[in-house]
Amino acid sequence: MTDRLSAQFAFLTEADRLKSVLRANTLCDGSRAENSGEHSWHLALYALVLADQAGPGVNIDRVIRMLLIHDLVEIDVGDVPIHSADGTAHGSAAVQAAEARAADRIFGLLPADQAAGLRALWAEFEAAETPDAVFAKSLDRVQPVAGNIAAGGGTWATFGVTWPQLESRVGSKIARGAPQIWGWLRARAKPWFDARG
Amino acid sequence: MTDRLSAQFAFLTEADRLKSVLRANTLCDGSRAENSGEHSWHLALYALVLADQAGPGVNIDRVIRMLLIHDLVEIDVGDVPIHSADGTAHGSAAVQAAEARAADRIFGLLPADQAAGLRALWAEFEAAETPDAVFAKSLDRVQPVAGNIAAGGGTWATFGVTWPQLESRVGSKIARGAPQIWGWLRARAKPWFDARG
Repeated sequence: MTDRLSAQFAFLTEADRLKSVLRANTLCDGSRAENSGEHSWHLALYALVLADQAGPGVNIDRVIRMLLIHDLVEIDVGDVPIHSADGTAHGSAAVQAAEARAADRIFGLLPADQAAGLRALWAEFEAAETPDAVFAKSLDRVQPVAGNIAAGGGTWATFGVTWPQLESRVGSKIARGAPQIWGWLRARAKPWFDARG
Repeated sequence: MTDRLSAQFAFLTEADRLKSVLRANTLCDGSRAENSGEHSWHLALYALVLADQAGPGVNIDRVIRMLLIHDLVEIDVGDVPIHSADGTAHGSAAVQAAEARAADRIFGLLPADQAAGLRALWAEFEAAETPDAVFAKSLDRVQPVAGNIAAGGGTWATFGVTWPQLESRVGSKIARGAPQIWGWLRARAKPWFDARG
């Protein structure tokens, strides 16, 4: 049991480093960059509160577990903003390969049974095929949009995002798992883009 | 549905402010103070990973939900460190009353059904009587101890904590819900206190 606890605490202490990984978006008040640890908390809270927007067959507790671990690979790889490099960096083969290696290392700190289980849950999130993963991925796109609305533009201004880019990179993915949420956000995001012509 | 989503997003945007509430303890690398948002994420991850340490009748998914919301009242009240004011401030009647008012306001932003459910879950955590709440409260004491060990003293140095104080304020509460974890931590915390006589 002591060895098992030592492995579990090695993982939990390593996970602490996610609090030092900075994202492109800011807090809702614009005061500073958000880090990936607090982002993961906020997203899990999104899942808890927006559970009634999930499609058939979604297990919200499984979605919450998925969101708690979804960004741990960023400890090694960093955050790759969805609008950076004109939208081409996020999800590139090179980034995916680096994230897979990071997953091996970080989940590999855990006892073998837990390492396998959580690495599989992370891979399921990344693949975005199961109902749980589709909803989790949608929420991962929802939270920065809500943050940009609150912050008065945020990363849309930073990266010079256009409305068609937001619809293709973000809106279509939110709509896949949470269409009503995209409808709600769309109406509140559009005026920012309209005001910039 | 639009009104419901508006209430849910009002709550989720307000919750963002928890990322600006600073705690007494630092990150594991000592680089800066931890905030209560990222603390809540880390604790939920503790519950996920240390689930096999939970006592009979504990529902880990419920514990995770509890930990995701347990500190939201700090948006209004701030964090009250367990070792501050020589251990007397945390849990005082004045703090408890302020936290109850904060819970009314913050959970009250949600649609009524969700407000009642999450406020009750928070009250259950605070009462620390059910198996889920006892385990959740234990983990809330575990994480700062693990952080202080990693940081080489942390808040034990800040507040001049003695070994008997750690055992009474923290150890006894961890042991109530997670005795094996306290055994593991105790062996790794004691040397820091022994070295200071």
